[in-house]
Amino acid sequence: MSGARNLTAALRRTRVSRPRLVLRPAIPQTLCATARTFSASSTVQAEIRQIKYTSDAYPNLKRDPKFGEVTADDVTYFKDLLGAQSAVVDGVTTDAADDIEPFNSDWMRKYRGHTRLVLKPQNTEEVSKVLRYCNERKLAVVPQGGNTGLVGGSVPVFDEIVINTSRMNQIRSFDSASGVLVADAGVILEVADQYLAERDHLFPLDLGAKGSCHIGGNVATNAGGLRLLRYGSLHGNVLGIEAVLPDGTIVDSLSTLRKNNTGYDLKQLFIGSEGTIGLVTAVSILCPPRPKAVNVAYFGLESFEQVQQAYLAAKGQLSEILSAFELMDGRSQRLVQESTGNKQPIEGEYPFYCVVETSGSNAEHDMAKLESFLENVMGEGIVADGVLAQDETQFQSLWRWREGITESLSHLGGTYKYDVSIPLSELYQLVDDCRERLTQKGFVGDDDSFPVRAVVGYGHMGDSNLHLNVSVRQYNKDVEKAIEPWVYEWIQKRQGSISAEHGLGVAKREFIGYSQNDTMVKLMQQLKSFYDPNGIMNPYKYI
Amino acid sequence: MSGARNLTAALRRTRVSRPRLVLRPAIPQTLCATARTFSASSTVQAEIRQIKYTSDAYPNLKRDPKFGEVTADDVTYFKDLLGAQSAVVDGVTTDAADDIEPFNSDWMRKYRGHTRLVLKPQNTEEVSKVLRYCNERKLAVVPQGGNTGLVGGSVPVFDEIVINTSRMNQIRSFDSASGVLVADAGVILEVADQYLAERDHLFPLDLGAKGSCHIGGNVATNAGGLRLLRYGSLHGNVLGIEAVLPDGTIVDSLSTLRKNNTGYDLKQLFIGSEGTIGLVTAVSILCPPRPKAVNVAYFGLESFEQVQQAYLAAKGQLSEILSAFELMDGRSQRLVQESTGNKQPIEGEYPFYCVVETSGSNAEHDMAKLESFLENVMGEGIVADGVLAQDETQFQSLWRWREGITESLSHLGGTYKYDVSIPLSELYQLVDDCRERLTQKGFVGDDDSFPVRAVVGYGHMGDSNLHLNVSVRQYNKDVEKAIEPWVYEWIQKRQGSISAEHGLGVAKREFIGYSQNDTMVKLMQQLKSFYDPNGIMNPYKYI
Repeated sequence: MSGARNLTAALRRTRVSRPRLVLRPAIPQTLCATARTFSASSTVQAEIRQIKYTSDAYPNLKRDPKFGEVTADDVTYFKDLLGAQSAVVDGVTTDAADDIEPFNSDWMRKYRGHTRLVLKPQNTEEVSKVLRYCNERKLAVVPQGGNTGLVGGSVPVFDEIVINTSRMNQIRSFDSASGVLVADAGVILEVADQYLAERDHLFPLDLGAKGSCHIGGNVATNAGGLRLLRYGSLHGNVLGIEAVLPDGTIVDSLSTLRKNNTGYDLKQLFIGSEGTIGLVTAVSILCPPRPKAVNVAYFGLESFEQVQQAYLAAKGQLSEILSAFELMDGRSQRLVQESTGNKQPIEGEYPFYCVVETSGSNAEHDMAKLESFLENVMGEGIVADGVLAQDETQFQSLWRWREGITESLSHLGGTYKYDVSIPLSELYQLVDDCRERLTQKGFVGDDDSFPVRAVVGYGHMGDSNLHLNVSVRQYNKDVEKAIEPWVYEWIQKRQGSISAEHGLGVAKREFIGYSQNDTMVKLMQQLKSFYDPNGIMNPYKYI
Repeated sequence: MSGARNLTAALRRTRVSRPRLVLRPAIPQTLCATARTFSASSTVQAEIRQIKYTSDAYPNLKRDPKFGEVTADDVTYFKDLLGAQSAVVDGVTTDAADDIEPFNSDWMRKYRGHTRLVLKPQNTEEVSKVLRYCNERKLAVVPQGGNTGLVGGSVPVFDEIVINTSRMNQIRSFDSASGVLVADAGVILEVADQYLAERDHLFPLDLGAKGSCHIGGNVATNAGGLRLLRYGSLHGNVLGIEAVLPDGTIVDSLSTLRKNNTGYDLKQLFIGSEGTIGLVTAVSILCPPRPKAVNVAYFGLESFEQVQQAYLAAKGQLSEILSAFELMDGRSQRLVQESTGNKQPIEGEYPFYCVVETSGSNAEHDMAKLESFLENVMGEGIVADGVLAQDETQFQSLWRWREGITESLSHLGGTYKYDVSIPLSELYQLVDDCRERLTQKGFVGDDDSFPVRAVVGYGHMGDSNLHLNVSVRQYNKDVEKAIEPWVYEWIQKRQGSISAEHGLGVAKREFIGYSQNDTMVKLMQQLKSFYDPNGIMNPYKYI
């Protein structure tokens, strides 16, 4: 990488001629997930047909006989109700398998359902009528946004009706004085952020799937993402929600007020409920001013202890302008290097790398803070080497070493993915312990006789959120059994979370007990029964 | 005020010799409320005896006959259970009226109950046993923290047992790497903040009553306060809660993780529930690093339009370092001047004044941003005049013009207080409209024949949160009737909130319909019945 090859040199250079600071570039993609746009091409169809049905992969899940089956009369009702031809994808009375399949499977090609009916209501009233009808007929449903989730939460398991929010895609209002955006659930995150960019504001959430995911889905899954350490969680930023309960009740709690202490904050229940108690139809959210300057640095470090020291230094010295502190281990960076063929930003090999980003309102001040921070961490021997992006191309290029990990892994075969919260001091220990365990069992090796290619770790250091990824040549039950429930027990011992930001869905539902005690699980089940007594909302998932 | 008398001069001066920036001083007191420490002196007793009973002031409230009455056997049970002599204030079997009374009345001396029993459990297990017993015996209870609320929510109306959290006052843990504090509900906010100050962190909430209020009460009432625009709401910052349900169930959701997507975020229900579904016994909260530099400026402005322009400029230019933007009208500042005898910080009279505070990690950068902002708003003619604090004494002195309003009003007689959220553009219009209405009705005047002395407005501009105060020579039913429900109708028309941060309590419960629709109220009532089927938790209040 040309430019600030070495940080010591970079620091010298910046004193003479400051690096050009760029206006905030487009947010990098693929940080957690690669977005995918559905199309019904024959290739895609063929790919989908290879995905194992969730009902086969999880034989303990049985279709609940209490649920009705969709009939031709039901389809007629929905067609009359929703009007537009495009609002109903009918695989009940017609052979629409090709059109239906993309709604049955997730982007990871890991989960696949058997739905024969997809509904795309265009407004809240239609959602209300759809749900009331389904509730009366005891027809199970799955709310679906951009379908970019990682735990199989947004696709059916059996024949649940998919209620897709893609046709509810209007921005309702934006007030530049308060920064409050009100928008339909089906607005794509990137569309919302672009709309805000034109008005000098920022959507306070950013994640890899932003080109496809819907803001309603983001809220329903309490998405976390990249810059949570700066902008905070959706529980703080979401000011209002409009949602529909299974009985058709429209919950209009779409306040745009920053402070409103008039009763229980019921909207919070929908944030992170994964479509199990209601369907979010609109969101009101507080958006900060868009930062005027963004910088990014990429470091190599000799130990995880030094990564922690660097993080604490960044927190203390970059303070209010720190907008991301991402961790990548050496193996993850070698994978990116191998799959892209790009030269690594710094020479030499390190066991750990970090991406540190600042976002602020004054480019000179931010650069001065960053320089001072770099002088400190390099002077103290905390950071071994590093580079600082000097223009937008370099900014994007450095971020790609973080964002490219998921894609690099996907080229190798399957990946067992764990998204966990662990106290900072032990954050990386899980990766070492997991690698050691799988190595001892003889699973890890360089040639095809070993099922495991690599055990890598990366994630959001600033949120104590690790992504443990076990790359396998193909999915392997023995490997899976060696990891689970061991990995959950490991996390439980440290009072961590078995799902930091990805949620429960199908993938984690049976493991909730590792992160929630019996009382909490019981209270959750009570709440589910309270709001959804017929259990039609996204069954077989969550709790 | 010596020093930067005039901002233009101040700006000139700062170029030569920068104002001395101070480490963050003690947070000013009395911004919303004056803290008061209870004592059983005879003066206090006499004062309390003059407070009207809430049951008389609200004759529509009737004691619910379903509740049991406390007997000598109950007192024996509680004494055995809680052990320590100081844990039970017994006005049932002894004449302990003097000791009991401070728990019966609020600091505003506006509400007064008839309790004869105060319990002070020391830990969560004791709270659990107390509540389970009360629930079985159908004895109504009132959770009470520092008793600094403004809506009568923390004192009994009839003979509800007071469960006071003052003996649960231990800080359980603090992790400087993550900034997460875990503490008992009864820890005083200022104690928590001092503890954090010694560890270079800050409690992300600040309000006038910090010397008395308990953090459990802060969370239970979703306190907002001064610096919400910088640090966000408790819904975002509270990571975990331990609480006890009426049936004695201990809800252990005391996570210290920043990200944990494993099920419904039930703890959110307790935030702002005002003790009506459970009693918060401990809190886990994310605390930011303490800012290294704090500055404050005080402005005079010619119109509310210019206040809005100044706010938008501050938001855009001070951005990540803006930590408070407070509004005070000219009348409120004259009241402070009259009651303190202090000279106003700037000469001349203006209809509006603002306090703008910055908090950041680099004193020079912050001052440069502030200077640039000041040059802009003064150059554009948005701000007419202003001063910038040059040392800690001036910092405190400037803040006192904001914080002294409540106390100045209290010297004049009674005050009808309204704490409301209104869209920014109409924030101050309510004060003008209210003054005009009361003037037209002949209530406002300078001599004792007029019931109303002054109608003033001030508040948290950055949160669209106005405090409308009507100062009266004595409480007057005609004046009250002229204000209510007119003020609530005014707010409802603008989709505002009739209680931005003070909550509902007794004072606002019957007006909830002005800020919540029928569906929301019904859902809240359902939730209350769900968690508290016997209705023993803080009855006669909230919803």
